Amino acid sequence: MLYIIGLGLADEKDISVKGLEIARRAERVYLEAYTAILLVDKEHLESYYGRSIILADREMVESSSDEILADADTKDIAFLVVGDPFSATTHTDLALRCRQNDPPIPTRTLPNASILTAVGATGLSLYNFGQTVSMVFFTDSWKPASFYDRIAENASLGLHTLVLLDIKVKEPDLQAMARGRIVYEAPRFMTVAQCASQMLEVEDERKQGVCGKEALAVGVARLGSEGEKIVAGTVEELAEVDLGKPLHSLVLCGRKMHEMEWEFVREFAVDRGRFDGVWKREYGGRM
Amino acid sequence: MLYIIGLGLADEKDISVKGLEIARRAERVYLEAYTAILLVDKEHLESYYGRSIILADREMVESSSDEILADADTKDIAFLVVGDPFSATTHTDLALRCRQNDPPIPTRTLPNASILTAVGATGLSLYNFGQTVSMVFFTDSWKPASFYDRIAENASLGLHTLVLLDIKVKEPDLQAMARGRIVYEAPRFMTVAQCASQMLEVEDERKQGVCGKEALAVGVARLGSEGEKIVAGTVEELAEVDLGKPLHSLVLCGRKMHEMEWEFVREFAVDRGRFDGVWKREYGGRM
Repeated sequence: MLYIIGLGLADEKDISVKGLEIARRAERVYLEAYTAILLVDKEHLESYYGRSIILADREMVESSSDEILADADTKDIAFLVVGDPFSATTHTDLALRCRQNDPPIPTRTLPNASILTAVGATGLSLYNFGQTVSMVFFTDSWKPASFYDRIAENASLGLHTLVLLDIKVKEPDLQAMARGRIVYEAPRFMTVAQCASQMLEVEDERKQGVCGKEALAVGVARLGSEGEKIVAGTVEELAEVDLGKPLHSLVLCGRKMHEMEWEFVREFAVDRGRFDGVWKREYGGRM
Repeated sequence: MLYIIGLGLADEKDISVKGLEIARRAERVYLEAYTAILLVDKEHLESYYGRSIILADREMVESSSDEILADADTKDIAFLVVGDPFSATTHTDLALRCRQNDPPIPTRTLPNASILTAVGATGLSLYNFGQTVSMVFFTDSWKPASFYDRIAENASLGLHTLVLLDIKVKEPDLQAMARGRIVYEAPRFMTVAQCASQMLEVEDERKQGVCGKEALAVGVARLGSEGEKIVAGTVEELAEVDLGKPLHSLVLCGRKMHEMEWEFVREFAVDRGRFDGVWKREYGGRM
């Protein structure tokens, strides 16, 4: 049996009791380590779970899944995933590969907390979110802006958009590669401020009034942990905030934002007067 | 400190290790018991957590929250919530009341699995969901159809809609009440079949082609538990399925449904030939 086990968002104790029992008795334990990270490292998990853990990077999961699935028809293998197993497409792939194996490998998934729902901590209602989008690091020559179209669609219905921010873990250094050496870049995690800046950059080009300087947004960091941080403000304000260590995410608020949501969110405002002013003028059910 | 602790979806062992530690040492432990249910009862939780647990019904949470919050400024109170704490508005209310107390009562929320993300077990991508809607039991004289407008909005963008189904727990019997007696009706949980039937009923009136007989949908039951069940088909087919014990939910598929999603979902089809036929004709990116 392949157990795909969600670890939740913060540390070694966010795993469910059931998940912990399985991880402790499984034949092998893998940790998916490239779509999200916990606030503690592998050694920390190993010491608490009492197991050695194999780090599974993108290459292993996408190209060498046979290695992960070896003996899974007769033995229990645990595949640990930060957050909830279905938050990333990769894990659906793995489950599909199990099903299409001959004979099929039984799988079971243990769900856990995800940023997709933990973002409710902002006070924004989960019923008022549209489709979730991802934002990647822009480079000088590559500024993929498809997120803008998705946000515009959500905005046309007055809905909030959760923006998940790029993380770069174990990325090969292309310059070194050209010289025939494999060197990995230092890990990078997009911040709320970088996300807000990239939004302003694209808004400047597209000019549909979707995520301009005066749009309201909420930045979150390390949600679900004791050190979680939530800051609300205009996109212009958020482009200047420092929310500290990863992981960060951002919610762009929809115009339908209800008074009850506003009442909760405004407590996190960088500048409450400015936040209230924009909300009263442009939000609260106005479309 | 008020700890609002998500219990996850299935049983007593879906609580996080951290949540269990807090529940075991808290001064009082409440269980919110009216927006969702686990597959095990209160006594089961009490025996595993080694604590007596106070059932908190809607009346207590909405009208007598002072009772729950008593001493929370100096003692630890645990408020257990099925699924994720932010899945229901009620719990945001409770957190807001703590914050507005004088002096404010510190709160901490422990997120957990939610139906909003566990629904990824269907193979449908969480990125392709629009706003979530609720459907209530229709009566002869009351058939609230606002869900239809929300589904239509999502459909206009080709997005899936998660439909959360009504549960009635501790509802007063109105006839008995008229005779001056307080009697509660037996608990009721909407099934996938009832949801699909109500969709067809409203589609019949509104005729916008949003959730008619040939629309594709996926019914789920007891997600995240060992006995979870997933069935895909047309809304007409789902109106006839029996998925067994609660809780049920339904996803109405959006036209953008990707080939990778289809490949996964079709394995759950009541009638794979019919499912594939409708998908090829009407879905897969066609809008």
